[in-house]
Amino acid sequence: MKAEIISIGDELLIGQVVNTNASWMAVELNLAGINVVQISSISDDANHIKSAIKEAGSRADIVLITGGLGPTKDDITKKVLMEHFNSKTIFHEPTYNNILELFGKRNYPLSEVNRLQAELPDNCIILPNRVGTAAGMWFEKDDKVIVSMPGVPFEMKTLITEQVIPRLKIKYKTPFIFHKTIMTTGIGESMLAEKIEKWETNLPANIKLAYLPQPGIVRLRLSASGNDEDAIKMEIERQCELIKQYVPKAIFGFNDISLEEALADILKDKNLTVSTAESCTGGYIAHLLTSIAGSSIYFKGSIVSYSNEVKIEQLSVDSNDIELFGAVSKEVVEQMAVGAREKLHTDYAVATSGIAGPDGGTEEKPVGTVWIAIASEEGVKSKLFHFGEHRGRNIRRSALMAMNMLRLELLEI
Amino acid sequence: MKAEIISIGDELLIGQVVNTNASWMAVELNLAGINVVQISSISDDANHIKSAIKEAGSRADIVLITGGLGPTKDDITKKVLMEHFNSKTIFHEPTYNNILELFGKRNYPLSEVNRLQAELPDNCIILPNRVGTAAGMWFEKDDKVIVSMPGVPFEMKTLITEQVIPRLKIKYKTPFIFHKTIMTTGIGESMLAEKIEKWETNLPANIKLAYLPQPGIVRLRLSASGNDEDAIKMEIERQCELIKQYVPKAIFGFNDISLEEALADILKDKNLTVSTAESCTGGYIAHLLTSIAGSSIYFKGSIVSYSNEVKIEQLSVDSNDIELFGAVSKEVVEQMAVGAREKLHTDYAVATSGIAGPDGGTEEKPVGTVWIAIASEEGVKSKLFHFGEHRGRNIRRSALMAMNMLRLELLEI
Repeated sequence: MKAEIISIGDELLIGQVVNTNASWMAVELNLAGINVVQISSISDDANHIKSAIKEAGSRADIVLITGGLGPTKDDITKKVLMEHFNSKTIFHEPTYNNILELFGKRNYPLSEVNRLQAELPDNCIILPNRVGTAAGMWFEKDDKVIVSMPGVPFEMKTLITEQVIPRLKIKYKTPFIFHKTIMTTGIGESMLAEKIEKWETNLPANIKLAYLPQPGIVRLRLSASGNDEDAIKMEIERQCELIKQYVPKAIFGFNDISLEEALADILKDKNLTVSTAESCTGGYIAHLLTSIAGSSIYFKGSIVSYSNEVKIEQLSVDSNDIELFGAVSKEVVEQMAVGAREKLHTDYAVATSGIAGPDGGTEEKPVGTVWIAIASEEGVKSKLFHFGEHRGRNIRRSALMAMNMLRLELLEI
Repeated sequence: MKAEIISIGDELLIGQVVNTNASWMAVELNLAGINVVQISSISDDANHIKSAIKEAGSRADIVLITGGLGPTKDDITKKVLMEHFNSKTIFHEPTYNNILELFGKRNYPLSEVNRLQAELPDNCIILPNRVGTAAGMWFEKDDKVIVSMPGVPFEMKTLITEQVIPRLKIKYKTPFIFHKTIMTTGIGESMLAEKIEKWETNLPANIKLAYLPQPGIVRLRLSASGNDEDAIKMEIERQCELIKQYVPKAIFGFNDISLEEALADILKDKNLTVSTAESCTGGYIAHLLTSIAGSSIYFKGSIVSYSNEVKIEQLSVDSNDIELFGAVSKEVVEQMAVGAREKLHTDYAVATSGIAGPDGGTEEKPVGTVWIAIASEEGVKSKLFHFGEHRGRNIRRSALMAMNMLRLELLEI
């Protein structure tokens, strides 16, 4: 089964926006056993949209279109599709109600342009968009499927996951493909490859392995396809168990679970609470922990002590130690962790102090130098790390490492 | 002048690699006054490459192709192009010498496949690749230019910058194109469209407007092309001034500045400091503020008071008020802001308290209900918002709204 993706929007053609939408869709389609043969970014131009749809349809069975469905004048995709498919306009009550509901909740008045978003073609399946005002449209013609979706990433993703992929699977009876992703952290890609070399060599021939590295995390994706669904699943599960003996500390979960979710599960399971004292991570660990629904059960709060004054006054760090050892030191980070644990009354506290960059580095403590500490009733432990030169990645890697240290501490690994 | 970009490589079609090459090229081409009308990612398939070149040539004057020039079997771009242009093979001595030199430097043995990279078409201009083994090829036919380059980012970038763009500018005596993006927040796309309708209608014919919405932010992109560089720039600058009277509060900057950067500029300019007291945003505002290099000048710290206990103990919120009005209330959020300002000794403090969801909503205070307060030496102000149902977006929109309230307060708008 072949698919093409057409992304509509001038912002892609002037290079202002990188087409991450299409990459995300390509991953999802491939996981469903559908090959993507072309991805095209085109402008909001009627003739161009028409020719792109025709060309894509000549090569692929499925054409997925994103963008150009907004309420403003430059959004012309719906008009073009209705011409292409000789559609009549109907007023789609459920879409209108959805728009009303979205606007009602937000306390905004409904404008005429929004009302027009409920005027839809009569000869397509309307895919309700529960997270936005522009509905998806599923056309079928000459045994081809053409789907139009909004370009707003989370709206497109919701439609693809909840409606488009399930419908495509049913329509094309795609073969069974099983994927499982092993999530690792705290170890680089090449070191990981070395440690699991023996396991990788012994993988059965029908299981493919892909390394998918991100800053601070390496995902290992196992994929197998075939007819014996149970046998495939069982073998992949077995391999997921086997790999653990090679990298016991690195694996924090499976199938795109985040480290903060893995940590949430452990904290809830053990009925423990945590707080953070953050300098170089500037509240990012607290943000990651609270991005999880229900985190108030285990997360109590954080003291982001960006200035030394806040470290001293709010976390009871000894000002002499700051002078003697510097804010980025074992002594200070440990006092920060202990201070947060005591002030915020939690079982555990995590603290970070480092030089995120690009400025503030010295010869002795270059940019990327980060101390992380974990305090518990048993005392405080700390560790020194040397990350890179990029501010954003240093913050991200510090936060991930701090959460992984807490995870290993909680699991006593 | 119109150009198309064709990116060849299976890694793009399985979503493993995002096509940042094409975005980079699009920016460079636009800056040179060349409009990109389509970007296509296709596989290493001869027929597909041929049809893509034909289709691109039917729409554009210039076709830029990257990828498929490596020394391995699946790299077939050169073969396809030679068929397309009826080329004969020549042995290109300078390219061979370049390959020898590169391999000499890298201490690799030279294989037969690498020698083959010096066999090139006789009817193109060879663009020497000083940083890699695959040369660029510049074909001209029927008044169209077709250029093939390697897909390795730094090799492609070197060729584009040093050879392709300068040659295109000479050949086409390209016009000047100017873009400017107006950044807005605190107002939805359709409401914004209504408010600036008159301004939009009166835009000169040579200026195009595009709406680029994201959660909490709508970017407005103005584009114009022509020969009189100064007149175009002046007219766009004039329009950027004119729009301000229609939405004086919404515009926080230009050309993809972030709200946290805009805020940083104001705080540094006015020599003022800020802290945050965060409940529903859970440290996200602190994270955004500290994502900016040099933020320690104006950002002192934050108290993330996720639990009521932390609100009472660390921010001196009255426990009776929490009981009486609830944690998500005007009374509590104002005390949080005042508490943070006093405890962390800053000129301003921002506080948030709301129900991010998906749980915790009530009929009276549904998910998405968020109070935001700003404290300063003049007292404390607060405002109630109703966002949506999605936790992540509620956190993001609360943080943006809080930063925008602070921005407006600082600017006294």
